Order: sequence, then structure tokens, then C-alpha cells
Amino acid sequence: MTDAAFTVQILTLFPEMFPGPLGHSLTGRALEEGLWSLTTHQIRDHGQGRHRNVDDTPAGGGAGMVLRADVAAAALDAVNPGSGPVGGPVIYLSPRGKPFDQSMARDLAAGPGMTLFCGRFEGLDERLLEARSIREVSLGDFVMTGGEIAAMALIDACVRLIPRVLGNPESSVEESFSSGLLEHPQYTRPTTWEGLSIPDVLLSGHHGKIAEWRRAQAERLTKERRPDLWRAYVAGKSPKST
Amino acid sequence: MTDAAFTVQILTLFPEMFPGPLGHSLTGRALEEGLWSLTTHQIRDHGQGRHRNVDDTPAGGGAGMVLRADVAAAALDAVNPGSGPVGGPVIYLSPRGKPFDQSMARDLAAGPGMTLFCGRFEGLDERLLEARSIREVSLGDFVMTGGEIAAMALIDACVRLIPRVLGNPESSVEESFSSGLLEHPQYTRPTTWEGLSIPDVLLSGHHGKIAEWRRAQAERLTKERRPDLWRAYVAGKSPKST
Repeated sequence: MTDAAFTVQILTLFPEMFPGPLGHSLTGRALEEGLWSLTTHQIRDHGQGRHRNVDDTPAGGGAGMVLRADVAAAALDAVNPGSGPVGGPVIYLSPRGKPFDQSMARDLAAGPGMTLFCGRFEGLDERLLEARSIREVSLGDFVMTGGEIAAMALIDACVRLIPRVLGNPESSVEESFSSGLLEHPQYTRPTTWEGLSIPDVLLSGHHGKIAEWRRAQAERLTKERRPDLWRAYVAGKSPKST
Repeated sequence: MTDAAFTVQILTLFPEMFPGPLGHSLTGRALEEGLWSLTTHQIRDHGQGRHRNVDDTPAGGGAGMVLRADVAAAALDAVNPGSGPVGGPVIYLSPRGKPFDQSMARDLAAGPGMTLFCGRFEGLDERLLEARSIREVSLGDFVMTGGEIAAMALIDACVRLIPRVLGNPESSVEESFSSGLLEHPQYTRPTTWEGLSIPDVLLSGHHGKIAEWRRAQAERLTKERRPDLWRAYVAGKSPKST
């Protein structure tokens, strides 16, 4: 591990889930090579009483349990984010947060690292979020049993952007969202499969025409599948009129 | 395991990643209790030649490798989705897909199960997607090293909606997106922490006022943070004018 490595700290009730899938393949190799580092911290170590309680019933009633602000703060303060060697933002994974996207992944990957707080139950006492200036980030408009898998997704998307993690840096230049468009279709051998052929232009060897075709396909796919992205793409390309 | 269990099949180059985080906590307990089942299938078993090759260079050039249609089809056809005891859609996890959301989670959780195809490299030969009527689903507008963690997120969001997985079915009724709004803030003991108090109304015992406050907070948060969800919510509430 080098001092310059991208440093990830996880606060969780399930540290045994990590590194999990992140310990395999590209992210696993990069972890072994010290291109990033991962430490987990058990929130329950800061729980209260003999049973190390971390949660209590929601004020005002309702289903489930809420993670206590005092316990969560003790766990977070013990990790001491924002000072010392770690740095980077403290992120709470929550469906109420700002949707995670490729530009957030790029910003995070360019930084020193991040501290990810993984919730469980009905959520976290709101006062902790206010008192510790925690960024709420959402993986998407769906609800999960906890923040752990969301944290893994976020880490995976960031780590692959760290220099030297991907074998070929071109891979992250040409992909979906790098230009605001979905990626064009890909084909490989065999040239004909089940009667379906690779589009002729891709076999032409004419680089200009191939690039043109791919661009047109990326635009078509984005327009058809994601009118929201398409509008943002068109607005970003045209000079600001006001 | 019962015949009625929600059945998940995974095609992957990294079967050792599963169940991983899904083997813990609520999803892990539900897996043990047979409320859902998980089988993994190694795509490489259908690879070609002595080295069981699964990929080749992109037609038309470019970085990385593309998963071959013939190999992927052999893997998929061996699992035989859509017939036999499994059923449910075949889903390819891809940033070009339809964004996964809570309503898709509900639809999938109501069905017999699903087959998830996890890509790696630059993607999958487009002809497979056409020839096998595969649904492309995206976890969000970001790129990952592979489909495995995305599959885990999707499974987690679906499995928790299966009857009897959550201890309290109310938990999935009141949460974010169930009404098209982000969830209201949550609080629990202590009543005052670092000088911050739980809002008085939540301690009033007045159920009507508590519900009203929570609704107002959910609306405020959605309006502030997610104008896109707010517009959809307002449009859904008002009677169609055309």
C-alpha cells in the first residue's frame, strides 16, 4: 500500500460483508496492489449497554427501528474522517440522497478517498446528518435492506477510474456517459451468428465511417431509451442562449 | 426450500462472488429459510478451446474485449430460462438499460424469479440481446467493472419485498418511493442530542398531526432534492387534463 492510495472507510453493522465481491477481479487485484485501501468499522462497537444497542423505535411511532444519533456519531468520530490521513467526504447511502452518477464517480475517484456510512433498519436519526455535514447519496430510486451493497457499487464505480486499475485507460474514455450518451452496440467474432451479421461498416476498416456509425448509434439509443439524458446532452452541446 | 420460492439464476464469470453480501442479514436469513433461492452458472464453462475463451476484440476496433454471442448464448441456453421451473425475465445488467426502480422491483418480486446475466469487459455482443429477447436493466447512470454488484443490488431490492422476508410488512409500505415521495426524516432517542431536539410534534402523541408533519416533510424533501420525482408525483395526483 502506498500513501497515495485511494482510501475507503466503511462504517457498517456487517463488516464481514467486505470486501466481498470487491475482493475479486479488477477491484480485488487493485486492492492487493495497493491502488486503493479498505477498512471496515463495526458501528455496534459503539452501541449502548451490555447488548450494544444501536437503534431505538421511531419518534412519533411507525414500523421498524432507527439508528441512534449518539451511537452513529461515536462510530463516525472514532474513525475521524476529514482529518488525518484519510480525507474525502463522508457519505451516507440513502434513497433520499443525490443520485450517484458517473460525474460523481469521477469527482470522488480524483480525491483522497471517502468514508461510507451504511445504514440499516428504517434509517438514521436525522440530527446526525445535520450535525456532521454528511452527504446523502442514492444509488437509485429503489430501497435496499441496507447500505452495504450500495457502498460496494459506489466503490466499484470509483475504483475502476483510479489510474492503473483498468488495463487500458481508453476503456473508460469511450464508455457510456463519458460523452453524455449511452454506448454504441458492440460486436465481436463470429461475423455471422444464428443468421445475424456484424454490421458491414464495422468490418470495412474505414475508421472515419466506423466512428460516425458508432456516434449515430449512441445518439439513436440515447434518444430512444433515455429522453432525459438526450435532452441534457443536446442542451450541453448548444451554446447557452441566456 | 419450497417450490414457490423466488428463484434467482446468475450467469457470471465470477460465481464465487455469490451469495457474498446477500448471504448475510435479512437476505441471508431468507435464503436459508428458502424464501428465495440462488444458483450461479459459470459462463466460462461454455468458452471455446483449451483456454475456454469467452471474449474477443471489438469489431471495428477499440479498447477492451467483447463477450462472444455464441458463448453467451450457450451459457444462457444451458440454464434454459423461460421454461421449466424457473421462469421470469432474463435481465442483462448494463448502463444502457432501463433504469431500475422500486416499481420494477415490485413487479419482479411478484413473479416467479429472474435470470441475471452479468457482463464484464466492454460488453456483450449486441446480437445476443436481440436473439434471446433479453431485458437490459441499468442500476444507474454510472459504469461498473461488471454486472455482479449490480445484480446483488437488484436481488436485494426484490427479495426484501417477498412476503415474510421483512419482519414487519409495514416497513415496505411507508418507505421512500412507495408513495412517489422521498421518506420523511426519522428520529429516535435521545430526545436531545448535542443541543438538537426531536421536533415537538413527533413527541406530541397526536397521530393526525404526526402524519401531517411527515407528509409535509416528505413533500418538502422531494421538492427540494428531486424536482423530477416531484413533477411525476404532482402529475400522478392530478386528474388527467387531456
